[in-house]
Amino acid sequence: MKLKELGEFGLIERIRKATPRGRGVRIGIGDDAAWVECRHHSLLITSDLLIEGIHFDLQWSSFYELGCKTLAVNLSDLAAMGGIPAYLVLSLGIPVDFKTEDVEQFYRGIRELASRSGMALVGGDTSASEHFLICATVVGHAPWGPITRSGGKVGDDLYVTGTLGDSALGLEILKKGGIKTEEDEVAYLISRHCFPTARLKAGALLAKERLAKAMIDISDGLLQDLGHLCKASEVGAVIWHEALPLSGPYRSWSGDRGASCALTGGEDYELLFSLRVRDRGRLEKLQKRLGVPVTRIGKCVLAREGIKVLNAQGEPLSFPVQGYDHFKSGL
Amino acid sequence: MKLKELGEFGLIERIRKATPRGRGVRIGIGDDAAWVECRHHSLLITSDLLIEGIHFDLQWSSFYELGCKTLAVNLSDLAAMGGIPAYLVLSLGIPVDFKTEDVEQFYRGIRELASRSGMALVGGDTSASEHFLICATVVGHAPWGPITRSGGKVGDDLYVTGTLGDSALGLEILKKGGIKTEEDEVAYLISRHCFPTARLKAGALLAKERLAKAMIDISDGLLQDLGHLCKASEVGAVIWHEALPLSGPYRSWSGDRGASCALTGGEDYELLFSLRVRDRGRLEKLQKRLGVPVTRIGKCVLAREGIKVLNAQGEPLSFPVQGYDHFKSGL
Repeated sequence: MKLKELGEFGLIERIRKATPRGRGVRIGIGDDAAWVECRHHSLLITSDLLIEGIHFDLQWSSFYELGCKTLAVNLSDLAAMGGIPAYLVLSLGIPVDFKTEDVEQFYRGIRELASRSGMALVGGDTSASEHFLICATVVGHAPWGPITRSGGKVGDDLYVTGTLGDSALGLEILKKGGIKTEEDEVAYLISRHCFPTARLKAGALLAKERLAKAMIDISDGLLQDLGHLCKASEVGAVIWHEALPLSGPYRSWSGDRGASCALTGGEDYELLFSLRVRDRGRLEKLQKRLGVPVTRIGKCVLAREGIKVLNAQGEPLSFPVQGYDHFKSGL
Repeated sequence: MKLKELGEFGLIERIRKATPRGRGVRIGIGDDAAWVECRHHSLLITSDLLIEGIHFDLQWSSFYELGCKTLAVNLSDLAAMGGIPAYLVLSLGIPVDFKTEDVEQFYRGIRELASRSGMALVGGDTSASEHFLICATVVGHAPWGPITRSGGKVGDDLYVTGTLGDSALGLEILKKGGIKTEEDEVAYLISRHCFPTARLKAGALLAKERLAKAMIDISDGLLQDLGHLCKASEVGAVIWHEALPLSGPYRSWSGDRGASCALTGGEDYELLFSLRVRDRGRLEKLQKRLGVPVTRIGKCVLAREGIKVLNAQGEPLSFPVQGYDHFKSGL
């Protein structure tokens, strides 16, 4: 069978099934980060591979932006487990014709975000390559025990941080015009694409206070990542279309597509988590310390009900695109 | 400046200089692995990026072999610091036209070697890509404190494990004939290329017994890696041409090139280490437990004397190729 028939998630599932868990491994393949033991201390490890022409295009982002974004993507995985970043290992494949200054700008982005997150760049590998390749691995601590994707229960509320769909619209604007304008709304959407914010503070606090029961970061679109959370938690979900948090710029620029970019657009790097209904009050009180607003967008239901998006009248809406599969979408 | 002018090691040096060390970091950029603290426990982290067409060619190795080799390369870095492997994170870029079975054979190689080394595959990332890309990150323990490249002193002996140059000859034979023959000597050389052995047992024992003072694995050719060790230790080195450990098959197949492949050929994944002269007896006694023979090949001298290879008459020999620079050799 060709990979494009099996798909990315089919492959991951096969690898997971064939891989023994091993000593000291609390969570292996299949969550946002691996959770391993180091002398009775919980460590999280997460890795992301970014490839020029597939994950990013140097037409739409500067080397500095790319450095920031590379790291934000990884930190978002850690945030989704309530972890605190500590060490970064960065392996790069670099075309030999690149300017040294450009590579240094990339590292400047990396260093700035690393330093802001209390993380140290400790090593990696470099090689020549045809396209620019970035493989970033982050090791972090999970002092309160990580939050996995699997703790959701029927009846739980579903929340997201921030607003959804801004990044997808930002990329769309970049691709259409390609110009980085000064116009506030456009600049906002583009910056949400180029400088996503990993919700480290919110993730750690939700873990520390034991509020989030299941958590995932939204990198491939809300519906797809909600699907992962539901599968791991063995629940279904109802999402209220009217409740989705949309920014002002999103409303101006999404045209007649309503919330569809917010449901299926990628690279938001917001957190999606489930909360027991009895904890609503505690979450409310914590709100200000999270560093980002949170919005209740739906609830967990029985698995057999699947995932539904309901309009204000309670009627189900359908969304054809359900996110991104690296292999199935092809090259 | 273009990267191909600065070169791989120039780039690494620039990155190292610009990167603050950070909390908990004992050794950052520039050794075989990073050495970080986790609750007063020493962790080692090492990462390697392997790219189809640059580091490997699927013409010369099966997916299973490639899986084994990928891991051996990483484990060798850990061995060179006297570490014990624990966790593996593997990120792959895979062409969508690859067969699922091939990818599974690759993982079989990974799993077999991981399991033999007491290591667990805990996660990673997968993506579509034009060429096959492998980024493997290994986290390990260093219970006896890691051996760095910088502990060599003038007067120290220099030793290597195993034999040198076999892998380079094996690759040459593969490229010429391309046929995996049953002939013993040829099969041996090819297997040294396709299935290198990370010297984990030797590395850990040399660290535990505090015998190796400076250590590095030979991945880019003896002379180049010796250069790294000498630079970090601020010493020079004399290598005795006649003392280089060459296998029987090497002697049969190296033709009139003598030890030149052993000095400059890549991918041996043997260990090079320095030893205080007074420890020769202790090393002798330990020999059998190392799992591989060790050979004294030279000694550390004053830095200003540089690195020399001497023939039986004590005359210096010159070797034009000094290993591999990913950027300078170009694509």
